[in-house]
Amino acid sequence: MGCDVAFAPQEEEIYPEPQEYKLHPPARLADILEGQVRPGFFTGVCTVVLKLFHAVQPDAAVFGKKDYQQLLVIRSMLRQLMLPIKLITAETVRASTGLALSSRNGYLTDAQRSEAAQLNSVLTKAVAEVKAGRTDWDKLEREASDALSAHGWLVDYVAIRRQSDLALPLTGDRLVVLGAARLAGSRLIDNLEI
Amino acid sequence: MGCDVAFAPQEEEIYPEPQEYKLHPPARLADILEGQVRPGFFTGVCTVVLKLFHAVQPDAAVFGKKDYQQLLVIRSMLRQLMLPIKLITAETVRASTGLALSSRNGYLTDAQRSEAAQLNSVLTKAVAEVKAGRTDWDKLEREASDALSAHGWLVDYVAIRRQSDLALPLTGDRLVVLGAARLAGSRLIDNLEI
Repeated sequence: MGCDVAFAPQEEEIYPEPQEYKLHPPARLADILEGQVRPGFFTGVCTVVLKLFHAVQPDAAVFGKKDYQQLLVIRSMLRQLMLPIKLITAETVRASTGLALSSRNGYLTDAQRSEAAQLNSVLTKAVAEVKAGRTDWDKLEREASDALSAHGWLVDYVAIRRQSDLALPLTGDRLVVLGAARLAGSRLIDNLEI
Repeated sequence: MGCDVAFAPQEEEIYPEPQEYKLHPPARLADILEGQVRPGFFTGVCTVVLKLFHAVQPDAAVFGKKDYQQLLVIRSMLRQLMLPIKLITAETVRASTGLALSSRNGYLTDAQRSEAAQLNSVLTKAVAEVKAGRTDWDKLEREASDALSAHGWLVDYVAIRRQSDLALPLTGDRLVVLGAARLAGSRLIDNLEI
């Protein structure tokens, strides 16, 4: 990949003993959406990212928009903990079908990978509706969720939120639509900024 | 003091916004003794020390034995968070009366400062008893506590613990005796390794 050095530690190097010190992010950012479906998830993310930062002492760190909530949680962590690290945001890379690339796609069969593109399609449709002027967020979210369910997905959430902190949108906020759903046992997430 | 540079930030520099990300130390170290009397105290200590470490990026940090529990909490934090900082331990500095030096002593009148030395005297007596072979920790702690109460102190705790993690002592453990008590509204702490 044109990379000079990769630090890819084994689990035992990062957790030589049970992790007892934990970095707790605030509930308003961390207990919603992904954190509601996976309690404690962002405490684990913050703690291990903090450890990696200490081990590597980087000048900059790249996080992708595909894990949109993680990006926001880490951005606030850097600021709140006075970490002198520049956060670089990377756009989501997609297949020609629109499917966001992810190591998890490897668990999908060809037929499932084809169906997986529906997640992006449904979010894209929601974006178009918002751009056309709709502001009935609840109904829009339900329509998107129902469209996935009709295709056999088990939907965790489809949510239209404001970009800055994923709170419920107020007039004038810049928006993002986020979705998480399971297809044949694989849990996929995606999002689109509006 | 022969120091070249001092970083002594104002509160607004360290907390420009409410602190929402917090470093939680484990209950076994942080919810006993000082943490039992002052709930959440070591979460605040760990969080602000972590921020200062990020701001300063020190090669080494000096912590005094007077705040013995804090020293243990910070030592484990360094290890568990993979912070590349050498911890240097400083012995407690004492007045000729045995009183551990502390900025808090400034709140005491001359008469109170004289009485304050009792805390060290009582701990010194407990050390002597342990060295003489006593292992009835509960009774020893109660005697020390009663001696302070008889002098008008309000005792938070006198505790004989093992040095490594402040757990209840087992045979062969290296010990430390710790005390915290209030004298005329000033809360003083001290400890002696055995």
